[in-house]
Amino acid sequence: MSIEETVIEGRNAVMEAMRSGKTIDKLFVLDGCSDGPVRSIVRMARKKDALIQFVKKERLDQISQTGKHQGIIAYTAAYEYSDIEAMFRLAEEKGEDPFFILLDEIEDPHNLGAIIRTANLAGAHGVIIPKRRAAGLTATVAKTSCGALNYTPVAKVTNMSKTIEELKERGLWFVCADMDGERMYNLNLTGPIGLVIGNEGSGVSKLVKQHCDFVASIPMKGDIDSLNASVATGVLAYEIVRQRLNK
Amino acid sequence: MSIEETVIEGRNAVMEAMRSGKTIDKLFVLDGCSDGPVRSIVRMARKKDALIQFVKKERLDQISQTGKHQGIIAYTAAYEYSDIEAMFRLAEEKGEDPFFILLDEIEDPHNLGAIIRTANLAGAHGVIIPKRRAAGLTATVAKTSCGALNYTPVAKVTNMSKTIEELKERGLWFVCADMDGERMYNLNLTGPIGLVIGNEGSGVSKLVKQHCDFVASIPMKGDIDSLNASVATGVLAYEIVRQRLNK
Repeated sequence: MSIEETVIEGRNAVMEAMRSGKTIDKLFVLDGCSDGPVRSIVRMARKKDALIQFVKKERLDQISQTGKHQGIIAYTAAYEYSDIEAMFRLAEEKGEDPFFILLDEIEDPHNLGAIIRTANLAGAHGVIIPKRRAAGLTATVAKTSCGALNYTPVAKVTNMSKTIEELKERGLWFVCADMDGERMYNLNLTGPIGLVIGNEGSGVSKLVKQHCDFVASIPMKGDIDSLNASVATGVLAYEIVRQRLNK
Repeated sequence: MSIEETVIEGRNAVMEAMRSGKTIDKLFVLDGCSDGPVRSIVRMARKKDALIQFVKKERLDQISQTGKHQGIIAYTAAYEYSDIEAMFRLAEEKGEDPFFILLDEIEDPHNLGAIIRTANLAGAHGVIIPKRRAAGLTATVAKTSCGALNYTPVAKVTNMSKTIEELKERGLWFVCADMDGERMYNLNLTGPIGLVIGNEGSGVSKLVKQHCDFVASIPMKGDIDSLNASVATGVLAYEIVRQRLNK
């Protein structure tokens, strides 16, 4: 895998990118624009499950780097997304209980990169991110992951709660991190597990939290509110590592 | 404390800043410039133990934001540095064994900020950084620390190895993080402790490592080399927290 151009502008360029199989993270389309080529692109993007936003011309002009967007700008992933089956295969190959990290709207690409790096080193079999309101696999994420993106699968899902429910049926238990939870040392985190980390500012969303089996807290002895999201992920992931080693 | 102007240019401005008691992190002086005012500033900076670099005019022009540096540019700390005695006092007030975090040349201000944040929440009594080849308390660090800089003392020292030896005489044990160390779970980290974290790229320097009592390793199950420095600090600091809670 290599890091590639991630912003594509103009009808032909975007159409070509999609035909070549590039994953489109986000598509910005001029609102009200409904000629043939644009309609084709939107249809194709829908089929491929891309996030589509219809915006005003001013917004497109603002985003545009070339000034020649022709009403359409696409953000493609610098890296290809993987899928959840690849994570199960990885766990099986290693003869380990599945250990997935689910990110509920991590927005900072540096945090996402550091978390993928941590996931790799803590032996997690994959990272699951939502399609909306979250950093995607940009070049910054790839760089911050220090190569981990080449080894640790990252999958993008439409609905985090639904994914959690589907994975529960396949035997996973879910633990999310929140301050009002049970101290992490007192929980049994040794089985097939999904660790859910919330947004940098607002934490785990209420809806996602309701779908989790446990709520774990990191002991906080200080004066401020919370750890950096990637540090919190590291501390919790390594509590799972410790418990698994002790098992 | 508040975040203040951090780059000061020109003879009068720099002189005023020093007279007002501002801490100068770094002073850039035009090489070969030896008139009265400049000599006074350099003398004062030396007395206050600032890092002084004599550079060519081109370098000063490049750093300058105003274009009017008059041969002198100072970088002041956005926050005031504390000292090691304040850290001992904090530990004593809380009735706890001292727990200091020493950073051997952490260069990225985001890492430094995240580490100060972690130090606060893990209950460390202070962070010690070296004067040279390391990020200082810039506005970025303050912002990334999410307020922790208001509570957790940060001291700057000239010679890390010497500081370690002095602190050993006051009862601290030193543990540094390195891959070839003993797995952290097998070490006793419950007493008065200094946790030493190395540079983002090259790890703990050989010299500093020789002064440590233990070398601790974080179990690495992945394909890449090392965790992000602030994540590694979090994982190790929380191993200390866990052991102290179990004690």
